[in-house]
Amino acid sequence: MGLEAARFLEDCRKTISSVLGVVPSEVFFTSGGTEADNIVLQSLLNIPSPGEIITTGIEHAAVLENKAVLEQHGWKFSVLNCPGGYLRPQTLEKALNPKVKMVCIMAVNNVTGTVQDLKACTQVIRNYEKTTGRKIHIHCDAVQALGKLAFRPYDFDIDSAAFSAHKFRGPRGTGLLWCRNSAVRALSKGGGQERGMRGGTENVPAIAAMTKALDEAVSAIDSTLSVVREYRILVEKAVREAGYTLLSPASDSGLEFSPYIITISVNKLPSEVFLRIMADRGFCLSAGSACSTNSRGKAERVLEAMNFTPGQRMSAVRISLSPLNTPEEVNLLCNALREVAKEY
Amino acid sequence: MGLEAARFLEDCRKTISSVLGVVPSEVFFTSGGTEADNIVLQSLLNIPSPGEIITTGIEHAAVLENKAVLEQHGWKFSVLNCPGGYLRPQTLEKALNPKVKMVCIMAVNNVTGTVQDLKACTQVIRNYEKTTGRKIHIHCDAVQALGKLAFRPYDFDIDSAAFSAHKFRGPRGTGLLWCRNSAVRALSKGGGQERGMRGGTENVPAIAAMTKALDEAVSAIDSTLSVVREYRILVEKAVREAGYTLLSPASDSGLEFSPYIITISVNKLPSEVFLRIMADRGFCLSAGSACSTNSRGKAERVLEAMNFTPGQRMSAVRISLSPLNTPEEVNLLCNALREVAKEY
Repeated sequence: MGLEAARFLEDCRKTISSVLGVVPSEVFFTSGGTEADNIVLQSLLNIPSPGEIITTGIEHAAVLENKAVLEQHGWKFSVLNCPGGYLRPQTLEKALNPKVKMVCIMAVNNVTGTVQDLKACTQVIRNYEKTTGRKIHIHCDAVQALGKLAFRPYDFDIDSAAFSAHKFRGPRGTGLLWCRNSAVRALSKGGGQERGMRGGTENVPAIAAMTKALDEAVSAIDSTLSVVREYRILVEKAVREAGYTLLSPASDSGLEFSPYIITISVNKLPSEVFLRIMADRGFCLSAGSACSTNSRGKAERVLEAMNFTPGQRMSAVRISLSPLNTPEEVNLLCNALREVAKEY
Repeated sequence: MGLEAARFLEDCRKTISSVLGVVPSEVFFTSGGTEADNIVLQSLLNIPSPGEIITTGIEHAAVLENKAVLEQHGWKFSVLNCPGGYLRPQTLEKALNPKVKMVCIMAVNNVTGTVQDLKACTQVIRNYEKTTGRKIHIHCDAVQALGKLAFRPYDFDIDSAAFSAHKFRGPRGTGLLWCRNSAVRALSKGGGQERGMRGGTENVPAIAAMTKALDEAVSAIDSTLSVVREYRILVEKAVREAGYTLLSPASDSGLEFSPYIITISVNKLPSEVFLRIMADRGFCLSAGSACSTNSRGKAERVLEAMNFTPGQRMSAVRISLSPLNTPEEVNLLCNALREVAKEY
């Protein structure tokens, strides 16, 4: 029975690697995106001589919260600003120096949905590598990308990426690390599962469900995207009519963004007050990212790194759209936005 | 909906803490026992000045595999032998010295089922603390104890314990860390969930299932134990009749052991050959611990630390019993043991 489960697990790995367009030996099952990010960042602690890691101020806490522990062990943890939610390749270029051993850039921001120009960023890094002859590991937190936007790791010339199953309608408690750098070794230890990258009894049922969910999400990506894009345009219109401020990029901005996430500023209303008003009307919105116990604080930190004003930050509200939302639900939301703006 | 889920999570925490006889703030949800062990052991890397950790040679890989990373960061990792599967309190007493900051002792061994005299061991440590005035953190991997034997952390004067849901018929991919030492801070980082002890979106459905499973397992512990003890006696008898050697303690030895696990040596047959013969007859046995990708190797290492001979180690087979086994299944197993012994 154990051998059967082991074979089944490898079948799941093959399916997932084929969906990602990678080879199976680069795919590791984890307990989620946070763990996948941590495996890569904390693998730096295996390196005897500390160096520098460059990342952005708009990263998920799973990345940024490693600052203290890495600094304690002698690492420099450099955080770059992203005006409007975008890392400028020239900002990255200026930050590169011979001590840099890892660069960590998020694919899609979880607060405003901005999509980084990963190709331009990795190009800058790969060019720099040629001048020093030293390899820089490029990690990408792609939790908000996979299954929602086209995301195949090889397209971006990155070395590793973190994914979370529940972001593409798989179950909670499971996720993926894609890593093609064999020098990355996990700090956390166990019974040698996942070729030493992630110890612990494999969560086979959850992995099976994740595999199916990923396959379905990626197959349907064009149709779901077009549905969500339509919803996004309707909500954006309502936001403007309500007199609220779009903090996420506008559809006509020419910028790359995920339509699944819209963050707005509800003018002088504090986020919490607005959330309560909308909750009374049956809408589940968020004061920032959904995946944090202090979402207001975390979102504020990200919005600050995007150069939004304190006023915009304290009235920021995140709306998440799903292809499972009905057009009726979206219309009700739009009406509610307009009505609440008039009343308060 | 998020607030509802958060309240539900705290209800689960309350139920679990009441079953464990501890306070809710000491209970942290993890992705399993391996992660719970790693959180505690790797928290040592937060301490600026390295010291010594004492553990036993019969620990799970989730503990022992931390040797390399701790040593790399300046820690001394002392591993004590356990003849016959038991740590002698006097062995521990001799090993204690002013550099020791943590002692890590498994409650129930996963290969032979030996139960450590935790109270005697913690008493030795607490007495030693009085001579130095310095606190030693006592961690216990209790994965094989909870839900199978009576195990309430406060009874043993330990500081933390690791548990895995799928060992008490909860789902895979979730587990518990009980920790009453507020100085323990996780190395792995994320969105601040579990008060910073374990980041990552909480696996609420799995936690709910774990809570229910734990409550049921602990409520039924006396009746399931008496069923499994009966099974254990039958299998032990068959093992003797077959001429095989019991590596787990004998029922009449007066030693403390878990009846759920029996490891035997099948004389001159290599484990793998015996496993294949038994698999053909429909029995799922194991060459060692069940929770490892190289169970033969891991079990050999544990059996070596118990002072078993190379011959005994290479023919070691683990039989796991469950209250869900029927008396008929146990009889079939006993017959098969006797028959196979005659044939090979």
